[in-house]
Amino acid sequence: MSPRDQMIGTAIDLFQRQGYQATSWRKLVEASGAPWGSAHHYFPGGKEQLGVEAVEEAGRRGEAVITRCFVECATAESAIQKLFAVTGEQFGARDFQVGCPVAIVTLEMAPHSPALTKACDAAFESWRKRLVFELNARGYAGGRAEELAVAIMAMLEGCLVLARASRSARPFSVGISTILPLLKGDDAGPIRKRNAIAATKQTA
Amino acid sequence: MSPRDQMIGTAIDLFQRQGYQATSWRKLVEASGAPWGSAHHYFPGGKEQLGVEAVEEAGRRGEAVITRCFVECATAESAIQKLFAVTGEQFGARDFQVGCPVAIVTLEMAPHSPALTKACDAAFESWRKRLVFELNARGYAGGRAEELAVAIMAMLEGCLVLARASRSARPFSVGISTILPLLKGDDAGPIRKRNAIAATKQTA
Repeated sequence: MSPRDQMIGTAIDLFQRQGYQATSWRKLVEASGAPWGSAHHYFPGGKEQLGVEAVEEAGRRGEAVITRCFVECATAESAIQKLFAVTGEQFGARDFQVGCPVAIVTLEMAPHSPALTKACDAAFESWRKRLVFELNARGYAGGRAEELAVAIMAMLEGCLVLARASRSARPFSVGISTILPLLKGDDAGPIRKRNAIAATKQTA
Repeated sequence: MSPRDQMIGTAIDLFQRQGYQATSWRKLVEASGAPWGSAHHYFPGGKEQLGVEAVEEAGRRGEAVITRCFVECATAESAIQKLFAVTGEQFGARDFQVGCPVAIVTLEMAPHSPALTKACDAAFESWRKRLVFELNARGYAGGRAEELAVAIMAMLEGCLVLARASRSARPFSVGISTILPLLKGDDAGPIRKRNAIAATKQTA
């Protein structure tokens, strides 16, 4: 990994654990193991620039997780179930001591830092759009897919907050059992299949 | 208002806007207008003690909002609808620049500060218990009320994060339209009324 990627990875990790404000530029450079020279070379804008790039990278990683869940699952229901399970497991594996890096930076820095606010909004938007795209491809119509995407994200973000405070994965199981029934519906039949084929053709 | 209450109110406001870490003890004292002497007198434990008391007060205020929604509404559906509406409106009235003070302190300070972690967990627990109590009183059975309470809280917390980043109240309307159907069910009839009467008698 390049010192640049090392620093971005370290920033994501520290933001998840303690937030943006508690993470100094010095701590970021030292914890990443990057030489001071490269730190300044890659991030002439210092901590805020690194913060923006970390939020952007967290956005890409989150989008990749959503995509992978849909690629690996036959139905939208199982894909979303997997999304909650993966998030809950990652969280448990890190002893309930982490959160969503985009959420914490949003709550600390919006709107004080326009650059970080924009990056956070863009990251959430990328997840929303990816969810809408995948749901469309599984036959969920426009407006319904838009609502489902926001509901899934809000529930997942909320679960991450409650689970952190209670050091328990229970909110994730409640979250998914709340969301799953919404994905069932009378468009589960031929229309859904037709749209899925159309969407596959579009992307091909 | 006493200097003590002024300081707690100021702490809640500043945590909502910028978080715990960005809010120094000096800023807390100055913004509250409390004399330095009283600040140290009321909070010998400094910022962390004030933080704990602010989270506790935010917990009580949140619980009071939940209670009021149920007192003022004939059905659980309308009470929860009101809870989302009130939260969304308060948020919009403050120009989308605030968040849940318990959520931000959780994400910044759990588990690093055991005292703050405990206070945050207790605040969320008080909301959960109040929701379960009110739902029980409206005839929602034990396990179902427990799940509904967590789902409502997670959705509301998630909406607050997404709305902050996008500066839009839309997540709240999606959130409530996601939660409302869960409150409908086949226990909406006589059993619900019977339990409501029993619960009223219990509290009386």
